[in-house]
This record gives sequence, C-alpha cells and structure tokens, in this order.
Amino acid sequence: MIVVMKKGASEQDIQGAIASIQEQGFRPNLSRGEERTIIGVIGDDRKVADAGMFETLPGVAECVRVLKPYKLASRDFHPQDTVVKVGQGPGAVEVGARRVVVMAGPCAVESLEQVKAVAEAAKKAGAAMLRGGAFKPRTSPYSFQGLGEEGLKILAKGREATGLPVVTEVMTTEAVPLVEAWADCLQIGARNMQNYNLLQACGKARKPVMLKRGLSGTIEELLMGAEYILDSGNPNVILCERGIRTYEKATRNTLDLSAVPVLKELSHLPVVVDPSHGTGKRSLVEPMALAAVAAGADGLLIEVHPDPQRALSDGPQSLTPAMFAELMPRLQAVARAVGRWV
Amino acid sequence: MIVVMKKGASEQDIQGAIASIQEQGFRPNLSRGEERTIIGVIGDDRKVADAGMFETLPGVAECVRVLKPYKLASRDFHPQDTVVKVGQGPGAVEVGARRVVVMAGPCAVESLEQVKAVAEAAKKAGAAMLRGGAFKPRTSPYSFQGLGEEGLKILAKGREATGLPVVTEVMTTEAVPLVEAWADCLQIGARNMQNYNLLQACGKARKPVMLKRGLSGTIEELLMGAEYILDSGNPNVILCERGIRTYEKATRNTLDLSAVPVLKELSHLPVVVDPSHGTGKRSLVEPMALAAVAAGADGLLIEVHPDPQRALSDGPQSLTPAMFAELMPRLQAVARAVGRWV
Amino acid sequence: MIVVMKKGASEQDIQGAIASIQEQGFRPNLSRGEERTIIGVIGDDRKVADAGMFETLPGVAECVRVLKPYKLASRDFHPQDTVVKVGQGPGAVEVGARRVVVMAGPCAVESLEQVKAVAEAAKKAGAAMLRGGAFKPRTSPYSFQGLGEEGLKILAKGREATGLPVVTEVMTTEAVPLVEAWADCLQIGARNMQNYNLLQACGKARKPVMLKRGLSGTIEELLMGAEYILDSGNPNVILCERGIRTYEKATRNTLDLSAVPVLKELSHLPVVVDPSHGTGKRSLVEPMALAAVAAGADGLLIEVHPDPQRALSDGPQSLTPAMFAELMPRLQAVARAVGRWV
Amino acid sequence: MIVVMKKGASEQDIQGAIASIQEQGFRPNLSRGEERTIIGVIGDDRKVADAGMFETLPGVAECVRVLKPYKLASRDFHPQDTVVKVGQGPGAVEVGARRVVVMAGPCAVESLEQVKAVAEAAKKAGAAMLRGGAFKPRTSPYSFQGLGEEGLKILAKGREATGLPVVTEVMTTEAVPLVEAWADCLQIGARNMQNYNLLQACGKARKPVMLKRGLSGTIEELLMGAEYILDSGNPNVILCERGIRTYEKATRNTLDLSAVPVLKELSHLPVVVDPSHGTGKRSLVEPMALAAVAAGADGLLIEVHPDPQRALSDGPQSLTPAMFAELMPRLQAVARAVGRWV
Repeated sequence: MIVVMKKGASEQDIQGAIASIQEQGFRPNLSRGEERTIIGVIGDDRKVADAGMFETLPGVAECVRVLKPYKLASRDFHPQDTVVKVGQGPGAVEVGARRVVVMAGPCAVESLEQVKAVAEAAKKAGAAMLRGGAFKPRTSPYSFQGLGEEGLKILAKGREATGLPVVTEVMTTEAVPLVEAWADCLQIGARNMQNYNLLQACGKARKPVMLKRGLSGTIEELLMGAEYILDSGNPNVILCERGIRTYEKATRNTLDLSAVPVLKELSHLPVVVDPSHGTGKRSLVEPMALAAVAAGADGLLIEVHPDPQRALSDGPQSLTPAMFAELMPRLQAVARAVGRWV
Repeated sequence: MIVVMKKGASEQDIQGAIASIQEQGFRPNLSRGEERTIIGVIGDDRKVADAGMFETLPGVAECVRVLKPYKLASRDFHPQDTVVKVGQGPGAVEVGARRVVVMAGPCAVESLEQVKAVAEAAKKAGAAMLRGGAFKPRTSPYSFQGLGEEGLKILAKGREATGLPVVTEVMTTEAVPLVEAWADCLQIGARNMQNYNLLQACGKARKPVMLKRGLSGTIEELLMGAEYILDSGNPNVILCERGIRTYEKATRNTLDLSAVPVLKELSHLPVVVDPSHGTGKRSLVEPMALAAVAAGADGLLIEVHPDPQRALSDGPQSLTPAMFAELMPRLQAVARAVGRWV
Repeated sequence: MIVVMKKGASEQDIQGAIASIQEQGFRPNLSRGEERTIIGVIGDDRKVADAGMFETLPGVAECVRVLKPYKLASRDFHPQDTVVKVGQGPGAVEVGARRVVVMAGPCAVESLEQVKAVAEAAKKAGAAMLRGGAFKPRTSPYSFQGLGEEGLKILAKGREATGLPVVTEVMTTEAVPLVEAWADCLQIGARNMQNYNLLQACGKARKPVMLKRGLSGTIEELLMGAEYILDSGNPNVILCERGIRTYEKATRNTLDLSAVPVLKELSHLPVVVDPSHGTGKRSLVEPMALAAVAAGADGLLIEVHPDPQRALSDGPQSLTPAMFAELMPRLQAVARAVGRWV
Repeated sequence: MIVVMKKGASEQDIQGAIASIQEQGFRPNLSRGEERTIIGVIGDDRKVADAGMFETLPGVAECVRVLKPYKLASRDFHPQDTVVKVGQGPGAVEVGARRVVVMAGPCAVESLEQVKAVAEAAKKAGAAMLRGGAFKPRTSPYSFQGLGEEGLKILAKGREATGLPVVTEVMTTEAVPLVEAWADCLQIGARNMQNYNLLQACGKARKPVMLKRGLSGTIEELLMGAEYILDSGNPNVILCERGIRTYEKATRNTLDLSAVPVLKELSHLPVVVDPSHGTGKRSLVEPMALAAVAAGADGLLIEVHPDPQRALSDGPQSLTPAMFAELMPRLQAVARAVGRWV
C-alpha cells in the first residue's frame, strides 16, 4: 500500500502517519517528492481491515493498494492453469484444457420431456455438458420460481440418458447438499456473487463450482468471490462472464469479453462465457459465442429450449435445438482457428 | 404490454401474434400505423412469464411493458404514505412521518464499550435509532466478518442503555429468527437486494425490514425486492438509497438522491438515505446528509465510530461522535426549512 | 507517479525501469516490499506524455499517478474560493459568493414574446440570471436546431427588459466572438466538455465561461476541461453538474450531487447545478434544486417555459412560471438554513 | 409513439390527450385496458420535437417511442449492406465487403521516419489501410497535441511509400477541407460523436467518414450521429466500436463487441472495431481483435508503434511491428473460419 500525503502536509502529519503504519505492523518507506510526500507501506496489506484505513489520518490525501487483495485465485501464486474436472466416468469433461466445453440446456427445467429432448439434441450436436435451472432467481415474485428438487431429479435423468454432466444453480446454503447430491457442478448465479455465506458453503462442497460474475461485479470482486470458495477448501472453481450492467439498453447486458483475457492474466482458473444472458437476444448468441471462443474462453453456456416461445423463463434468448445444431460446426471452425476444439 | 411488429411484417405474422396473445389469455388491440403495426395486449401482464416472451414470434420487433411489474409496493394501489413503526414503548419511532429519523452507529459492532459510547453520544445529539453490524458482508475472506450473535447482544445492551431501537443486517435465512429476536428492524444489505430467499424469509418476520438498494439495482428492481417482502406477508418495509455503482471513482458510490422523490412518486413506502456508504468519505457525509433531507428523505443512516482510524470496517467514512454532534443542528435547520424536524 | 513491478520481476527489469525513469528526467526512489518492488517517480509527472508510459517496460505491473493532472484548477495551488462576476452594472452577479445564483429561462429561445414572458416572471420571482439556448445541440437532425444569431438578439432584449445577465451556449469556435458579443457568460454544453478547440477558444474570450460536465465525464476530466480554459487565459470558469449517464433509466440522467462537495474540495472554482437536465422530469426539479442548495451549490440552472407542452425542446422538464414562483421561497428557506440566500 | 395514461386518469384527461395528439397532426388510436388506457399515436413521430412532449399533459404517465428516430441509417429503409470504398487506384479498399480491412498505424504521427517504418511493416504484414493522428484530442492541455498539417503531409508520404489509403481524425469544422485534401477517410473521434456541426461539415465532404462511438454513446445515438452525416449528403459512413465507459476499471474502456451484430441488424453501414482504445492494454489487443472478427466486424483499427515505450501517445496499448506481424496470420485464420479473409 502507498500512503500519499496532502500537498503541504506538516512534518508532524508525516511522522504521525509513519507511527500509525508501524503500529499496524508494517514497515514505512518514506519518499519526499517535489510536491507530495509518499510513504510505502511494506508488508502484506491483505491483512489490513480496510484499504482506506490510513485515509483518516491528518495530512493524508489517499491510500493506494499495490497488492491484489486475492492470493489463492491469483496467477502470481499459482502460475500454471487450473483444469477442473466435472462429472464421473466416460462423460467427465475437463474445463480449462484444450477442448472448449459447450454447456447447453434450458434456462429453467420445466418437465422431463423438455429436458430429455434438449439433452439429446445437445449431445447429438456435440455439447459436453447439460445446463438447466431447478431453483430460479426471478425478479418478480409472480414469475415461475423453478421445480426445486423435482427439477434436480429431472436433470439427473437427462444425464442418465446422455452421459452429459449436469451444472445447475444453487441459491441457498441449505440447498447445497441437495444440489451437490444430484448435480456434477454447482452454479452460483450473478445475483449471489457476493453472497458470502453461499460462497463458503459451496467452498465446503466436494463438487466443482461455477461462479458467475455479478451484474455490476468488477473483475477483482469476481476473483475475491473465488477466493472465498478456494479459502473454504474447494480448489475447483470455474469463472463465468455473463454480461455486466451498463447504460446501453440495446442488449440485456453488455457482454464484457475482454474479461476473458484479463481473468486469464490475473488468475489460473478456467473462464467460461454465457452469451445467452450476456445479450438476452437469440440472434446475438451465435456471433458472441464465436467471439468468446476467439477471445480464449474455455467454455460456453448456451440456452436451448425446444419451444422458446412457450418457455417459462428467458425464451427470447434461447436457441431452438435446430439453431444450436447449426451453431456447433461454426464454433468448431473458430475453435480450430485458435488451436482448440469443441 | 404492447407488441410492436417489424416494418414489413406480413399479415400472417400479425395474425400469428394476435393468436399467440389470445392463447396466453389476453385481449389484442390492433393499431396499424404508417410504418409499423402495433398490438396492445390487454390484461394483467404481470402474470406473463417474461416481458419479452412475444419477441420470439415471427415479425415481432419488440415488446414494451406498460404496467409496472409491482403492485403491493405501488402507490397506484396504495395511495397514502405508509408509516413504519420501529421499536416498542417510549423509544419507538415512526419512519415515514414528519420526523426525519436519524439512525447512527458504527459500521461493525466491535465491543460493548464501543457501542455504548456511540449509542450514548448519538442519543445525546438527537439520533432516533441505533445502527451497527453484527454480521458483516466483506469483500475479502480475510477481513473482519463481525461478532455474530455476540454482536446482536451488544446492540441490545446499547438499546437498553439509551432506549434507541436497533437496526442491524441479516445475511442468511437461517439467521432471521435470531436477528428478529434481538433487533427492532431487520436490514437487508445492498448485496442481498435480489437474494429472493432472504427477502421471503424477512417477509415472514414480524419486525420491520429495511431494504437497501443494490449496487447496480434499478429503482424498479428495488421495488420488486420490496414486492417480495410485502407478498410474503410483511407490510413494514423501509427503502434505503445507499449509492449506486457508476463509472465515477471520486466517490465510493454515486449517491442517487433523485431516487428519493422518484420512489416517493412510485411507491407509498418510506425512503431513507445512507450518505456514509453513499459517498465513502467522511467529509462528504454532512453535505449529502443535508441534501438528502432537502430532497425529502424520511431518515438517514450515519456511521459514527469513537476512533475511526482504528475501526475494523469503513473507518474512512465514519464520523466521530463530535462531528455527529455538530451535524445534528445543521440537519435540524434544513429539516425545518422543508417543514419537518429531526 | 509510482511504478509497481510485477511479482518476480528480475533485478535487470528493476534496473531497466530505473534507467527509463531517469531518461525521462525524473528521480527514482526504490522500495523493495515483501512481494513487490515499487519505484517512486519524483518530479512533475504532469509532463509525462501518458500516465501509463512506463507500463510497457519489462517487469512492470502498473503505473499509479499520485499528482492530480490539473494545476490551475486545483485548490492545492489556489486555496481561496474564486468568485466569478457575470454581467455589468447594477444587474451584475457574483457566482461563488454567499448568494446562490438562480439562472432561469427556456431550454430553447423560440420568440421574443416567450423570452420576455419568462424573463420578467423569473426576475419577479427572484432569479438572478437569464438562461436560454440560441444554438441547440440536438440528438436528431430533424429536431429544432435553435434560432442562432436571432436567438442571441432576443436574449439580449430579455436582458434589457429585466437587467438579468444572460448565459447561453456556444457550440463552435467560429461562434465564440458572436456569442461573446451578445451574452454575459458563455456556456459549454455537456457534449462539448472535451471539445478542446472550443475550450481553448472560450479560454481566449473575455467573458466568463460555464463548463458543463459531460454525460460520462469524470470529475477529473471536468477539471481538466477547466484547466484548458484557464491555461488559455480565462480565469473566470464556473463548473456545472448536470447529471451523468448511468444504468438507471427512471430519470433522464443521474444527478450526482456529491460532485458539488467533491469539486469544492479539489478546486477553487464555483459550482452550479442543473436539476432540469439532471432529472429530465418536471416533478423532480424542486426536490433536487433544494438538495443542490443544501449540498453547497453556488447556483442553479432551471428551465422555465410559459407553455411547456408546446416547447420546441425539453418541455417535460420545464417548469411553468407559476411553478417557478412557488419554488423560489422554498429555495430561500433551504439557502438560509445553510447560511446563504438566493 | 404510444401515450400511456396514468391509472385513474379521468375521461377529460383522455380526451385532452387525444385533442393534443390531433393538434400535432397525428391520428390517435384509443385502447382501454383493465388498468391503463393507452393511446397509439399514428404518424411519423420523428417530426415530434421531443419524445416526451405529451408527458406534460394531465393524466399522462409516459410516452413510449415505437419508431426508431433514424431513417437514412436504418436497415428498414435500406436493406442491402453498404460497402464504402476508401482510397483511389490499386490500393483502394472496400469496407463492408468480404475482406476484413485492417487499419494499422501509430496513435499520433510523430515523424516521417516513424510513419514510414510503421506503414511499411504494416503493409508487409498485410494491413489494408494506414491510420495515424495529426490532430490529437488530449485530456490534458500539457500533453502532445499532434503535428497538425505537417502530420497530414507525413501520412500522405506514408501512403505514397506503401499505397495504403489513410484514415485520420478531424477535430474542427475549419479543418475539414484540409484533412479531406490529404487523407482518404475522415475520422470523427469518440469525443465528437455528438459534435453536430462537425458531423454536418463531414457530411458535406466527398471523402468517406469513419464515426467512432462516444465514450458513453448509445447505439441509437451512434446511428443518429450517422444520420446527421447521411442527411448532410455523404452516403459513405463507417461505424466504429471503440469501447464504452463502465464501472469496470481493469480495462481502459469496456469493448462492447455485441455492438457489432446489433449495428448490423439495425443498420446497413459497415462496422469496424478498435481493440487498441477498446482495451488500452497491449496484451489484450490480440484476443479482442480475434473476437471482433469472429463477431462479424468489417475491419479493425490497430495501433502499431516502432517504439511504444517512447510513444508520445497511447504507448501502453500499441503493438510493435513484430507483434503486429504475428497477429495477422491469426486474424487470417479466424477470418477464414467465419467465411472472410484479411
């Protein structure tokens, strides 16, 4: 951390800041500039309660963090890429390896027929995993809230029928054991990226966790969310970019694809992209899925529904199975162009 | 809802959209413009699974909602102001009445001495409620996470000593009964504005709930969060503006004071403002507290700490008891100027 | 500036950075931390071509600026408040003194009758200046673009009739002499906050300049805009907060009132607020005008139109003269409460 | 346009709104819903002074636009893709055809040696156009402001040496003839997207115009900017996505690649992407350039500098000629994968 003194800070202020830095167990490094004096704070400032703690001292203009606040999620401390294995047996997939893992399925699980139809079509077209929501976070209390445990069982039947490992969202700490029992990967949704109790509960689970970036989550906050899970004991974390909230309303969210290479630089964890939520519009899913692969994504989450117009959730952004089947060879072509495959 | 057809949509597309609208139980109203045909969807579209559901139909350009998605939180259905009573006995306060309710206290409960010192100073200066966090949502797993139940007990002792009702955050559904037992008002923090299970659990509590706007929560989403609580049976909801996330980094958040009159127009619920989190900087708390009162806020949440430099959380934005004592008469003057009092 | 080396940067990288810092005419201050080495760059880094220039060096993680990039606009170099005198003779007003200067008038000048009606009503209600647009920046080429020079003459007649000094927008460098000839204060609109040629042309004018914050202008960029004007020779700059662009769409813009005290801390220049553009909605103008005064604004820009429904621009946010007359005593009450007057 | 009446609007309010709609030359279409009455406004509402004009009427809740405000830029009125030809003779290129046009060069023109070195390297690696700034909009008045006319001449020499057509920024209406004389394509920078006088002046030029999206420009505003140019008589407009301003600070801007397919749907104009400004960081240029091509971009703007560390502008985001040469075959591979070439 660096403590920047105000222009004209008195010698007493400077000595006070130095004393305060020492009191907190750090070593100060004083540097007097032409206009400003700055004091380097040497030591692991991740232990500091608050980045701005020294800002309340007299004569201090601001505190600037130098160290990243995360450690376990950081590439600095774990240079090699993490590959997360999802599922068991022959259908198991590795996220973060050369294969770009396509996870397809409906936004919400509605019925066994629906899930089986989508799972089989997705498998046939080349998908590697099955996605679908049994517990649904909905903006309105009057919207369909998901089938709950029944939905989890249906997803498991989809896996039985196709061999595809299942990823599904968990919304509460109480439901973690249940979701862990039925699914192969626990998804933490965007609205829960900073639900720290849920992060810790998933950190104690033995299945991998896919953590979605919050609607206004910064890249650093996403990595701090991962840090909570890693620090609770679960090393198998997949990060997911799914669009952020901006002033632009032509799309449901603004898909921040630059987050893919940025996360790859800062962290060793695999990164997948959700172009369905990221755009909210069916016609944009294909171009953004192709772009995500070109940008280096390790996987894709794509919503597929047999009858989008009658979907109970997110119909406008769902592909039909036929559209998904057309997308896959195009994804393959781009994946090959960047030295990977789907 | 209004369904806008694409320029050049065929007659078959138009008839298809009409049939689909009728199939969902609505009445269509067709209007052919010079360039575009639009179809009014008559009926309560809050029941529609998704605002964009008709957007997947051939020839449809977009769907536009006309009705607000909330009903219980809406002033349309409840024209008179709601006044929420917090606490019992002589110290009970009414939020949403003529008195501007000032809630003061430390960000995090650290010790009995700390809470008593602040509570007594706040009471003496004219505060009406005591605030403080026992469960703390922290960005870093390495930061102080709060004293938990012990913190709740300390807050209760602060109330005993001063008569001030207590508001404190609850972060999990499991903790709702515990917090309800010790506190007078349950606070749902910004990160949990869309934690629907928590909203529903607080909706079943018998104590009032203060719901903070999410970091990137829209005003409509805040009201939908309130709708969840109201729909679960709890009519005593207080809304709180606490700053939103924008591109501007000179302040920790951008305090959106226009949310106060906007919420007052759209809803009957009381609205309070948190200038401490809203700005993140001690020197900005006073001007924004005064501005909030001038804009029509029903209350203020102000962080006060006896020794901000050693605070375990949010020191840079905390006032000292002396600064708080100086603020109160200034708040009183502005409150009087707009026909209220603190 | 501080150069932060990557974890694991080699000694050669560190020496290379030091050499590069020296080559640019700065003095390095080396500080070796436990995880990171940082190098203070001593000297006036405002001369550095680009804040990030050292980031391209091998082993460098990032560069952090310590000095503010503006100097003439900074309170550090000009501690006392600047008071800007607008107009001549008995009607002249001081912006930045104890009086809160209310500038009222139509968005666009439409006719002599309109301007005279508004100017007289505004004067009677207590306004101190007349505002109105002769050159109008409109999003659509098909919208009314203003009366141009004719509009300037009409405004001058409004001044003649009432004695109120006139502020009006200038959009091009060519029009600066014309606007300067007819008006008392040149307004640079939000869309031109970073039109550097226009800033420099206004910097050479002899009339004061009111610089509006851009739609997504940071506080620092606003002050850099002021720096351009000041550096071109014009010391009379008034800053104007008029709402920023955020994800929230309940209001036209998000009025960032915290910008008022932030600008007052960082700069010596007066700060006014435009609640009309800041909210875009007539019913929000009064609460936000009151809040702006409570937050410390030195003035207000308020749109008033005799017949808002027939206004050629911004009708929905314009007050009628009757509404304006009701607002003024309320503003007076809040101004008195914070030790000022309107 | 649709006028939505408030819940409980009186019959008199409804008749008043109808009368007002008719007075403005439109035909009303009344639709009485269960909770709300809505009135369709039939006719070309692009002529309406302000979208919200009817919002000031008694009983009106809101106005919703149905027609897009642009016409000449709209695909509705011009279904086939526009291909813009830039340059003359054998080096002329078509933007918007199957070839993805790569425009490479330094941020700022610094010397003939610099431009020649870059132009020759870029040409050799396969670039189709030369970019470079002679007039530089700089945040600070103390930064290098460009070589002006001298810079234009240097760029022309770069063209002579390589045959690459030149695109360069024009910042003022006065400079349009000069830039038009020396360059092949006029660039309007992000800060000038809503500088309407400049748009009109470029609309009267005979060279093509590349219009960059503003820092907080919406897609609709970008198209309205294009509409200004088209309406002034110049049909050759290229749109450019270059990153928008969001809360995320890990990148200089947030490159909104979904803007590419969205613009392609709404408009017939070609769309290019600037990953250098869009990310601000050299290591992110390659992944985002590849992603842009996968998303359907018609071209790329890439900053290349022979010695980025000594660049007078934007060094941190500039590639070296060697890095650019490595990028080109990777771009070629992705372009081939989506049926195009570079």
